[in-house]
Amino acid sequence: MNVTVRGHRQACRTVDFDAATNTVRLIEQRLLPHRFVILSSTDYQKTACAIRDMVVRGAPAIAATAAYGLAQGARAFRGRDLARFTAHLERVRTTLEAARPTAVDPVNALRQVLQAMREGRTVAQQQDLALAAARAFADASVAHCEAIGRHGLPLIQDGTRVLTHCNAGWLACVDVGTATAPLYAAQAAGRQFHVFCDETRPRCQGASLTAWELAHQGVSHHVLADNAAGHLMQRGEIDLVIVGSDRVLGRTGHVANKIGTYTKAVLAHRHRLPFYVAIPLSTLDWELRDGSEIPIEERSEDEVLGAWGAVATPGLRSSASTSASTSRPGRPAYVRIANPSSHARNPGFDVTPPELITGIITPVGIFKPRELWRQRQRLGGPA
Amino acid sequence: MNVTVRGHRQACRTVDFDAATNTVRLIEQRLLPHRFVILSSTDYQKTACAIRDMVVRGAPAIAATAAYGLAQGARAFRGRDLARFTAHLERVRTTLEAARPTAVDPVNALRQVLQAMREGRTVAQQQDLALAAARAFADASVAHCEAIGRHGLPLIQDGTRVLTHCNAGWLACVDVGTATAPLYAAQAAGRQFHVFCDETRPRCQGASLTAWELAHQGVSHHVLADNAAGHLMQRGEIDLVIVGSDRVLGRTGHVANKIGTYTKAVLAHRHRLPFYVAIPLSTLDWELRDGSEIPIEERSEDEVLGAWGAVATPGLRSSASTSASTSRPGRPAYVRIANPSSHARNPGFDVTPPELITGIITPVGIFKPRELWRQRQRLGGPA
Repeated sequence: MNVTVRGHRQACRTVDFDAATNTVRLIEQRLLPHRFVILSSTDYQKTACAIRDMVVRGAPAIAATAAYGLAQGARAFRGRDLARFTAHLERVRTTLEAARPTAVDPVNALRQVLQAMREGRTVAQQQDLALAAARAFADASVAHCEAIGRHGLPLIQDGTRVLTHCNAGWLACVDVGTATAPLYAAQAAGRQFHVFCDETRPRCQGASLTAWELAHQGVSHHVLADNAAGHLMQRGEIDLVIVGSDRVLGRTGHVANKIGTYTKAVLAHRHRLPFYVAIPLSTLDWELRDGSEIPIEERSEDEVLGAWGAVATPGLRSSASTSASTSRPGRPAYVRIANPSSHARNPGFDVTPPELITGIITPVGIFKPRELWRQRQRLGGPA
Repeated sequence: MNVTVRGHRQACRTVDFDAATNTVRLIEQRLLPHRFVILSSTDYQKTACAIRDMVVRGAPAIAATAAYGLAQGARAFRGRDLARFTAHLERVRTTLEAARPTAVDPVNALRQVLQAMREGRTVAQQQDLALAAARAFADASVAHCEAIGRHGLPLIQDGTRVLTHCNAGWLACVDVGTATAPLYAAQAAGRQFHVFCDETRPRCQGASLTAWELAHQGVSHHVLADNAAGHLMQRGEIDLVIVGSDRVLGRTGHVANKIGTYTKAVLAHRHRLPFYVAIPLSTLDWELRDGSEIPIEERSEDEVLGAWGAVATPGLRSSASTSASTSRPGRPAYVRIANPSSHARNPGFDVTPPELITGIITPVGIFKPRELWRQRQRLGGPA
């Protein structure tokens, strides 16, 4: 998407690769919304750390990062010994795959790159194929998001009030976004609508990232505490929910996504509101047979016991600028909110069962969750 | 309850009154869990501000504060003119009642004190009666909480895992608490159980106040992001929900409470988990005829756009001391979390309909929400 940095409007992807320096380039998302910085990762271990430490997050974005990280690791290998190269590649793959466990997109991305490399007969050929496959994965991811936008466009009419959870925007993808794709398509079509962004504790990706994105694109929106959407649904102030996902089971239609997604699906179901999940094809898992098999990451309790932000005075806000870097933020800080001697539980994701989901918006159309298996050919699944 | 201040264990009420100096004494709850300070309010306007600004919060606690504030305002009147005294009293009542709109307890408390004052024939007599009635209200509030504990005790068995939302503990009352009363009763009975405290954004009373209370009383607990309880219910890790309330409609059984309560009730209903609401009699509203008539306070968006805490380093915690004042907190600060140019919606409360509520735990027994009207004689309601 376009961002304005130091007064210059420029196109920018969340994840990119510079072949000349073998460097993965990532928007440093932990500094948003307060500072816009591009982080350059010069080796695959640093790239894996960037995934683990959430410099980059969002299933499609970490998938592209992992794909580029694999190409980066492959291209850093010196020598012609294919057996040693293959062993090295396996270390690279394992390191990147272990960085975060819940999303399936990185697993699928790494598999695609490794498969493409098999065509090469020499280390050099395989290195070139790795880069081409990683680029192809990233470009396909963007194309998928654009197609999600086309299929989801009819859901967003004039006056539609949309709730979204966490960030499934262009910052969670290579570009465009999944849950946001229909919104940006509707905006391009001149439609007037409103978005409610769950702040999405504990890391607040809704308040910090989705709100930043929507503000930069000029989309009307409000931030909500995660507690508030039920009340707004009860009052008839929400028409539709769209979220992203970290893993959709092709066999059953179960959806793993940021903690709190399940709660919003239960609320939408009670209020008979449509609940959609928008995903590129890389988010489909064709292997697992039950939602309970999805590994749920348990993250540091510090995320729940406190919050990160910019030290500020309530009531004082920077001017409503859409520029990425002109605001002068306060000093970044972590504040402890909870009682100092208390502990917290911090599951990072939850699983929403298919009966609560109206439709899965994919690059090839919208499907009922239970239809995915029947449609697996169209969705790139197994025979 | 007992708190340890500078090494000394002492009994302490959340709200108290010093007749000699005509001063309302309040625990300064905005400084908890980081500092324990008693605030002395020397006139009724300051007492109203303390309610408005949430020095004191929780429906039963602000009711006792309002009752004492009325006595304080009455006792500050100089002169013998009953008509002027009555006009003055009306200003005091209006100021205290307007401080926060959603809870009905202050309205009931003020009505009780004013009614008791009618027995007096002179200003001096009415001033004395005001103080006696305010004290009686506060003492009855404590007795109500103790009775809630006795009636709720059978719900908490060995191994029970309880979810609570916001703070309906002794800090929300004069003492003992409403939702916490059965917990403290179970602890006194030697039972082993576990409590999950929703952090309760935006003001995080669960993380800062309930966790502080439970830690001080030695009750096993974890803090949760508001997003997490649905996932834990799905995994069978929660047995029971108990919350407090700011207003229960005696005619219909609708329950107003902190924003997010409705969501937890919907989740409990889906998972067939019992959902209880614990209240003193002052929380009953016998007049309103529908949940939609309850005024919902819309609070400052700054609460949602950021958070208050003590500047700290993640991973560093004070020793697990149960002392109120021995921890050395970081500097208190407000951090802006959300995108600086974004706005927020911030409804402070929501309304849970009777069909989602298993029982209302009152000082005279546990009732189905639809039974309240039939039981109105026992519950101090209208004839």
